[in-house]
Amino acid sequence: MSLEILIKNEKVDIENHLFSYLDKLQIEKVLHEAMLYSLKAGGKRLRPFLAVAVAGLLGKEKSLVMPYACALEFIHTYSLIHDDLPALDNDDMRRGKPSNHKKFGETVAILAGDALNCDAFSILFEFGEGNFHKGGKYLAKASGGRGMVLGQIKDCTVPQNERTVDILDDINLFKTGALIVASTAGAAAWLDGSEEEIKALEEYGKNIGLAFQIADDILDVTSDSKTLGKPIGSDAQMNKTTYPALLGVTKAEERASSYADKAVEALDMFKDSSWKKALCELARYVVERKN
Amino acid sequence: MSLEILIKNEKVDIENHLFSYLDKLQIEKVLHEAMLYSLKAGGKRLRPFLAVAVAGLLGKEKSLVMPYACALEFIHTYSLIHDDLPALDNDDMRRGKPSNHKKFGETVAILAGDALNCDAFSILFEFGEGNFHKGGKYLAKASGGRGMVLGQIKDCTVPQNERTVDILDDINLFKTGALIVASTAGAAAWLDGSEEEIKALEEYGKNIGLAFQIADDILDVTSDSKTLGKPIGSDAQMNKTTYPALLGVTKAEERASSYADKAVEALDMFKDSSWKKALCELARYVVERKN
Repeated sequence: MSLEILIKNEKVDIENHLFSYLDKLQIEKVLHEAMLYSLKAGGKRLRPFLAVAVAGLLGKEKSLVMPYACALEFIHTYSLIHDDLPALDNDDMRRGKPSNHKKFGETVAILAGDALNCDAFSILFEFGEGNFHKGGKYLAKASGGRGMVLGQIKDCTVPQNERTVDILDDINLFKTGALIVASTAGAAAWLDGSEEEIKALEEYGKNIGLAFQIADDILDVTSDSKTLGKPIGSDAQMNKTTYPALLGVTKAEERASSYADKAVEALDMFKDSSWKKALCELARYVVERKN
Repeated sequence: MSLEILIKNEKVDIENHLFSYLDKLQIEKVLHEAMLYSLKAGGKRLRPFLAVAVAGLLGKEKSLVMPYACALEFIHTYSLIHDDLPALDNDDMRRGKPSNHKKFGETVAILAGDALNCDAFSILFEFGEGNFHKGGKYLAKASGGRGMVLGQIKDCTVPQNERTVDILDDINLFKTGALIVASTAGAAAWLDGSEEEIKALEEYGKNIGLAFQIADDILDVTSDSKTLGKPIGSDAQMNKTTYPALLGVTKAEERASSYADKAVEALDMFKDSSWKKALCELARYVVERKN
């Protein structure tokens, strides 16, 4: 099965669980509606997919990882809602639809984000049977003030004209990388993986996270808006310092490829399986994708 | 020892732990500073005190409950930061100091709140040795979309002129009550208390939560700003529907007292101890306090 078909198939299962967990929480209408709106606006479900793939890689049942996988998507979704707020990126649109605060107002958007943040842990505790201590610890550390939120602060406070390639890497390692590492290594922790497995998946996650972000910057320059599904050239328009702006497109592509190589290498220790193959292909895919 | 001295003594110990846990998380400066600023602005530390008192009531070590107690204060503090934002209550001041967004700007305030929300769970997982599953579940449920956040949505969306006493009770049960119940019953869950103990402490928490809120409304009418430490009459000025506005001061006082009575009754099942006495006194104190 091709990687893209695998991702699409898993996406169906992941979304079924995602919406079913939200329903089971039985949250009152006004808040439920705002949470669901943004949960439904999701794209490839990359983070839950990674967690599902890690379960496969470790030979564990998919059902065991599903609550953790959906908790990741709750956290990711809340971060997008808060990121779009006027005080942060001030984005009116998200994936072709009005952003949460445009649809429901800022008050509800802030609170829907807060609920998704906290109830990610409700999903772990209420529907999960993994290692609460190790998995929960990983998720909280990756999402809070030493992980994703720190990355958002960095991205909001480091001036664009001071950004070097190393600084871009540093921002990305936290802003998007932390939750991607939580999707790989954190999933392994939740599934009681060994320290070596967790370490290898940290390395894998960090590297695909960086590769993904560089590829994102490149697509904004080289793609067309129809393929990409959003306007191109927006980084340049907003005077954002990007990898291709600092390195040129060719060197940025080489850099992304080299991170993808490192990600693949990090998986060496795992025995061959269809899921290992999928994770290796995914490392290439994040670099070579067209949207 | 009088209750007020007991609360003051415990406050010292609680704050030592609170700041020490934050330090141990080793969060980078810009975010750490904003989180600490609001953590330091705290008042009586009622929620952690309740958790400490419950540990005493159940004959458990205080050190065992401390991470849970401080996690409660992290959640409470984030809720105040987000509550003060322009899109919510739009309060420039909090306990006589500029509110977080006035001091650090809205971007940092939103993110500092997000970090405190998530890292409440980091404290449980990294410094705790209680029942992660039962205690964590309780805390997440009480704080998220079925608890405190739901209460905030209700408070922001139910029009003042539609509020009856029952509706006020309903809003308060979620907005402030949920986290107070998490401070009593949730602490018992964290400490592996029995189902009967948890249930009794839910009843106690709900009733002191309601009594506390009614007393708050009454103080805004009957106190003077020097004693209260903030301007009085602000509810009337903002056209807020309050218990004394609906019932008159005397009936509102009776209602608060009757909730305090119910709280005390709920503790019947526990054997006599200095902590039981303190919790009974606390139920009276929330009604009779002058500020």
